[in-house]
Amino acid sequence: MSTITALDVSDIRFPTSTSLDGSDAMNLDPDYSAAYVRVVTDANDGHEGHGFVFTIGRGNDVQVAGIHALSHILVGRNLDELLDDMGATWRSLVWDSQLRWLGPEKGVMHMAIGAVVNALWDLKAKRAGLPLWQLLSRMSPEEIVDLVDFRYLTDALTRDEALDILRSAAPGRSERERELTADGYPAYTTTPGWLGYSDEKLVRLAKEAVADGFSMIKLKVGGDVDEDIRRVRLAREAVGPDIRIGVDANQRWGVDEAIEWVSRLAEFDVAWVEEPTNPDDILAHAAIARGIHPIPVATGEHMANRVMFKQFLQADALQVLQIDASRVAGVNENIAILLLAAKFGVPVCPHAGGVGLCEAVQHLSMFDFVAVSGSRDGRVIEFVDHLHEHFVTPVEMRDGRYHAPTAPGNGMEMLAASRAEYVFSESDYILSK
Amino acid sequence: MSTITALDVSDIRFPTSTSLDGSDAMNLDPDYSAAYVRVVTDANDGHEGHGFVFTIGRGNDVQVAGIHALSHILVGRNLDELLDDMGATWRSLVWDSQLRWLGPEKGVMHMAIGAVVNALWDLKAKRAGLPLWQLLSRMSPEEIVDLVDFRYLTDALTRDEALDILRSAAPGRSERERELTADGYPAYTTTPGWLGYSDEKLVRLAKEAVADGFSMIKLKVGGDVDEDIRRVRLAREAVGPDIRIGVDANQRWGVDEAIEWVSRLAEFDVAWVEEPTNPDDILAHAAIARGIHPIPVATGEHMANRVMFKQFLQADALQVLQIDASRVAGVNENIAILLLAAKFGVPVCPHAGGVGLCEAVQHLSMFDFVAVSGSRDGRVIEFVDHLHEHFVTPVEMRDGRYHAPTAPGNGMEMLAASRAEYVFSESDYILSK
Repeated sequence: MSTITALDVSDIRFPTSTSLDGSDAMNLDPDYSAAYVRVVTDANDGHEGHGFVFTIGRGNDVQVAGIHALSHILVGRNLDELLDDMGATWRSLVWDSQLRWLGPEKGVMHMAIGAVVNALWDLKAKRAGLPLWQLLSRMSPEEIVDLVDFRYLTDALTRDEALDILRSAAPGRSERERELTADGYPAYTTTPGWLGYSDEKLVRLAKEAVADGFSMIKLKVGGDVDEDIRRVRLAREAVGPDIRIGVDANQRWGVDEAIEWVSRLAEFDVAWVEEPTNPDDILAHAAIARGIHPIPVATGEHMANRVMFKQFLQADALQVLQIDASRVAGVNENIAILLLAAKFGVPVCPHAGGVGLCEAVQHLSMFDFVAVSGSRDGRVIEFVDHLHEHFVTPVEMRDGRYHAPTAPGNGMEMLAASRAEYVFSESDYILSK
Repeated sequence: MSTITALDVSDIRFPTSTSLDGSDAMNLDPDYSAAYVRVVTDANDGHEGHGFVFTIGRGNDVQVAGIHALSHILVGRNLDELLDDMGATWRSLVWDSQLRWLGPEKGVMHMAIGAVVNALWDLKAKRAGLPLWQLLSRMSPEEIVDLVDFRYLTDALTRDEALDILRSAAPGRSERERELTADGYPAYTTTPGWLGYSDEKLVRLAKEAVADGFSMIKLKVGGDVDEDIRRVRLAREAVGPDIRIGVDANQRWGVDEAIEWVSRLAEFDVAWVEEPTNPDDILAHAAIARGIHPIPVATGEHMANRVMFKQFLQADALQVLQIDASRVAGVNENIAILLLAAKFGVPVCPHAGGVGLCEAVQHLSMFDFVAVSGSRDGRVIEFVDHLHEHFVTPVEMRDGRYHAPTAPGNGMEMLAASRAEYVFSESDYILSK
């Protein structure tokens, strides 16, 4: 019998604030960071499970403490039992009666569970010798629904409805797997659009994005409306009429302000408006969606859990659903969200960027295409060209599309040398203040 | 000039799981705990600010780490500036651009901010020589609205509307302060109702509650419907027809289940149904409220922030609003919530119990009576008779009512001896497993 012997957790921070990469209307000076966990076992098979929570700097130590707190649930447990029934494993983490008080199912503790769940899936995929998207895509519909906790979901999606969705998609799986392997999954890029960039840099990067094959770019907005109009116009002139341009307000507005502001940007043919207001505000998003129709509202990267996603869908408060690999409680909860999106017929366009989020979330979109929604239409995965060099299997972009990964695992394993170099200590912090 | 010299944080846990005090359908074995903070200054005036986050055991160390992470914002800052503009102080904590990623405004980081904000209010009240409720009640309407961050609220409550509410209540303040000092604030008790208690203990404690002057008791439900019917019937027989009986499901149900279950309890004249489902599920609460009308839905103790409270009010998803002293970001955010409740005409009946929550939250209800809603009608503060002996100024109950505290501060200061005795170390934890 093999057991989990340790959760090895580290505080890893990249000093990105020095370059203004990643700056937007709310996040002025992010230091892209990871509360990183290695699941170590005594199986002697050469495999470890890797996962992390992405944060933007300060507080990464709190996130590390959150992951540590899960050790008592996992260390010493039978590895095969844990990996064979990942639905039960997920519930044993999410329903710990004392830890649950710290959310419930939101914030630091919930994201910590996400890191550990993702690391266990990484281990399971490595042991199976498959990339995560393929491991998931080859599970039966029954095995997949067993991963999902339907408590609090059944007023929108029952287990039987989820099974129907998966069974309907089953006949086309192998054909779509071939298509995916042949031509990848479409992406869009946020690389040109950060608020801290000069006009010259914005135009240059926008043109480069088109040359690189991207069919969509995204710009940060929400600082100053006249400035935004000017920058979106510059971008539209740079890319021409056929490239889609999304805008992202990073929670900056109230309802009236969002509707007013977006109306002034509409002439530039905006593909979507992302995070117009507070991510908890379902009713405000629904009001904004009505007010800016037919421009879609996109949101999800800060949405705490499947119960919030469910309500956004029920209220028609989003028209583009943006999952994040490390905000909710890992692969299982994201599968619940993919199934909800399929039920409501809403396209999933993941949030990525940060550090390692592209590497991680591509697996979920590819699984969605092969086994859930069965479609890539109207769907794009975010891409930002930062920090990929720190990963064991960095994403491969070809002509603006994610190439389907073939390496076993979930994509989240960071190079040991990078982990060693960027491990954080209080003395770094004092120097950086 | 005085400055803050340290946030001294401790992990304090009471081994309450051994007695099943505090057991309910979701929280089977709580160890009532506090992530406790002392705000220490160099003012040499003998005053410290005390505050805490209440948790139920495991993970209290994560909450301690969350409070530690706020040191960099406060230590070294000018004390008078911080205390003179508590609105700006609150924003400097909540809007830290990097820490905000860990919520935003929910879970461990947000509750950590709550502990520190409450500790600063404790310090401010002690320096003024007033109990918190009186300090707040003597502020001008303008000073009070300056404490509130109206971002994301204005679609339900504007600053001007909040000012109108406070100005309308201003003329009666001194009269109500006299009334409050004379006859206190009504309470209800959950002491009889924990799921782990025997029938004999339930009946005995219910009768004692009536003898002690309480006009309402509350029972935990949601384990088994037939068992619940039996227990609520026993309680109703024990207390007679004139005492109100609330029931609390602690998030146990889905929508249909809640409506069905409550319909079977309705014959016992249920005063309210508390936490019928997931605390994030606004739409489900609204559906349940419609389904069990005219029995009110009560919720709030697990609600993460003012944006969630706003939506519950907008959607008529609760009819009794239960603030908690340590779940949201402290006094400032609870004032925003009291103003929202006043705007919507919904009574506030705080959650309390745990450790120190009664001591803390009474100040907010008393402030609400004197300066916001101007009413005690239909309002009761929860009371549970646990662990009060550990506080410097424990609540005083007289004939089922909270006596208005007169000691300066916010009520959260725990005796130094208790803090020393119940400070937690990993070795305690290993013993308790």
